[in-house]
Amino acid sequence: MASVWISGAGMTPFGRRTQSLPDLMADAARAALTASGIEVPDAIVVATMNPEEFLGEGNFASRIATHLGFAYVPAIRVETATSSGAAAIFAGFTAVASGTARAVLVVGGERMTHLPTPRVSEIIGRSIDPYERSYGATMPALAGLITRALMARSGLSAREISQVAVKNHANAVRNPYAHFRAPVALAAVMASRLVADPLRLFHCCPISDGAAALVLTASRAAVRIAGIGQGTDALAVRHRQELTSFRATQAAAKAAFAMAGFGADRVEVAEVHDAFTPFELIALEDTGLFPPGAAGRATLDGETALDGRLPVNPSGGLKARGHPLGATGIAQVVELVWQLTGQAADRQVSAHVGLAQSIGGLATNNFVTLVEAA
Amino acid sequence: MASVWISGAGMTPFGRRTQSLPDLMADAARAALTASGIEVPDAIVVATMNPEEFLGEGNFASRIATHLGFAYVPAIRVETATSSGAAAIFAGFTAVASGTARAVLVVGGERMTHLPTPRVSEIIGRSIDPYERSYGATMPALAGLITRALMARSGLSAREISQVAVKNHANAVRNPYAHFRAPVALAAVMASRLVADPLRLFHCCPISDGAAALVLTASRAAVRIAGIGQGTDALAVRHRQELTSFRATQAAAKAAFAMAGFGADRVEVAEVHDAFTPFELIALEDTGLFPPGAAGRATLDGETALDGRLPVNPSGGLKARGHPLGATGIAQVVELVWQLTGQAADRQVSAHVGLAQSIGGLATNNFVTLVEAA
Repeated sequence: MASVWISGAGMTPFGRRTQSLPDLMADAARAALTASGIEVPDAIVVATMNPEEFLGEGNFASRIATHLGFAYVPAIRVETATSSGAAAIFAGFTAVASGTARAVLVVGGERMTHLPTPRVSEIIGRSIDPYERSYGATMPALAGLITRALMARSGLSAREISQVAVKNHANAVRNPYAHFRAPVALAAVMASRLVADPLRLFHCCPISDGAAALVLTASRAAVRIAGIGQGTDALAVRHRQELTSFRATQAAAKAAFAMAGFGADRVEVAEVHDAFTPFELIALEDTGLFPPGAAGRATLDGETALDGRLPVNPSGGLKARGHPLGATGIAQVVELVWQLTGQAADRQVSAHVGLAQSIGGLATNNFVTLVEAA
Repeated sequence: MASVWISGAGMTPFGRRTQSLPDLMADAARAALTASGIEVPDAIVVATMNPEEFLGEGNFASRIATHLGFAYVPAIRVETATSSGAAAIFAGFTAVASGTARAVLVVGGERMTHLPTPRVSEIIGRSIDPYERSYGATMPALAGLITRALMARSGLSAREISQVAVKNHANAVRNPYAHFRAPVALAAVMASRLVADPLRLFHCCPISDGAAALVLTASRAAVRIAGIGQGTDALAVRHRQELTSFRATQAAAKAAFAMAGFGADRVEVAEVHDAFTPFELIALEDTGLFPPGAAGRATLDGETALDGRLPVNPSGGLKARGHPLGATGIAQVVELVWQLTGQAADRQVSAHVGLAQSIGGLATNNFVTLVEAA
């Protein structure tokens, strides 16, 4: 298998945006292409979770290719719910690694803030097993249930899961692409309104618009995809072996590290899927970045802060940078590329190897991507 | 790039089905897996155009993987509108060719007949450029416009485009998997009610439910994917260079033949995307199977009939076997595998090389797949 390089990365600011999704994707794609020096890619992979219902649009691969001025460039859409962006990176990786393409534009995004929040939640909630949904399960409800189990088993309290929000907001203050640019105090997080016990508003990521893009190439660039892995699990939460760790993340991490030929000890920065802040703690342990039960304490001790031993979500994460579904998995890797190449300005950390972890649905279809500075 | 083999093929009967889409996909997948002798694939590619709106379901890759009992097998969904099935074959091909998987289950399907026809048409119509849609363009309306232009330029009459329906219905009579199993007479086709001038009801494919599946492997089997190509074009019909031939098919065919290292003269059987019967004639010329302007005459002369020089749509095609969107591109290749391995029973032709051509949207995202008996 040939090496796959990231020769360009770009994204739009996340948040409430007035532009159309094709316009947002075009901005991200052009930024990535400009950075890469490639004018026309060989292939395009588009990631978006549900433009049909969010926007009333279909045939989105052709729509975006045409909008970019690349009507003649083969384009496909890839969808794995909230990890669609990471799945698109995997598809682009496979195309370059197989030799079917030498330069693939991977672009993802979502536009949702024009819809009422209950409608967005309903649409996203269809990722849940239909039987569990029939009992009223929503994403926050199931995340709350998992968090309760986590607290009962691990001794974690509201402090640890709230400190994740404090840290990620603090990072987002330094990130001009972030949805939220205001710091939050621990007391404010812990006093925010209850969403799904024990999860409060500031433990949950916002609904965001935005887009992100990468150019993957067979020709050498400053950053290499050292490993990429996908992991899956049963759709129904009640059918899982474990409630408080995600098999899908563990399997994805195992595959990614096996491909890379190195272990978690080499990782110096991570972007993980903190759609709900306790998921950051679960991710850090499932990927092997922290031993089981250690991520909460490490967070309180500042080990995952921007100036800590292992900065986690320097971008602000889903929690504060925002979570435009199809963009998210790509934006994580955009941030890592910027961190590895000294382009992260006020939030720059020192790192040569980065890890991105993305969750699809309620952890049914997850990806881990490892990137390494050349 | 390693060779990619088709070690198993299966499908459900197409038509008005009462089973759920996951059940239909499971039937097709199990048939393909049984034929292949493979119990658990390394990866799954799911093709479905719009389960969100047809069924109110999301996260469909995980849904199907779980339903098949393969919750731990990495699954993604691929979508390119009506060519999603063919795109999924391409994704599976790339995975095997790159060495990232050794056995990929490709399964596609759609369930639509429970919805009113106008609602189905509205959903499918979102594949059209939004500006053209704003003027009331629908799929049949644009196909009618293209057919009018074709008739004006090529001298084709209603007879040729009606004979395609007569031929494909005659083939479907012999196919137990077909939606329509009754023959139609030329006079009946030409007298059927007008849908979009000059297209009449019997020039248009039905709305069908169904599923189809293939198992692609790195290990040798009876049929090989000799070539596969994707071709694209501008979303808007008004931006095309040509109205009466499809750039997307031409580019896909060129890429597929280049990969195969042989030409159209080697093809002995074809399955093409006759969602509207004139599209069969366009496809035969765009793929190079017939010279420009020759497909209509050849059809009247019986050259594309089951006992003709080059049998086209021995399955009955989209017109008579049916068109469950996400299943269609896969079902075409299932038919070719059966034809190449002597499993086509009453509709068996003699062939060692077959061509499948699939159209996404209004010919914005097309695929050509070449299969060859080992």
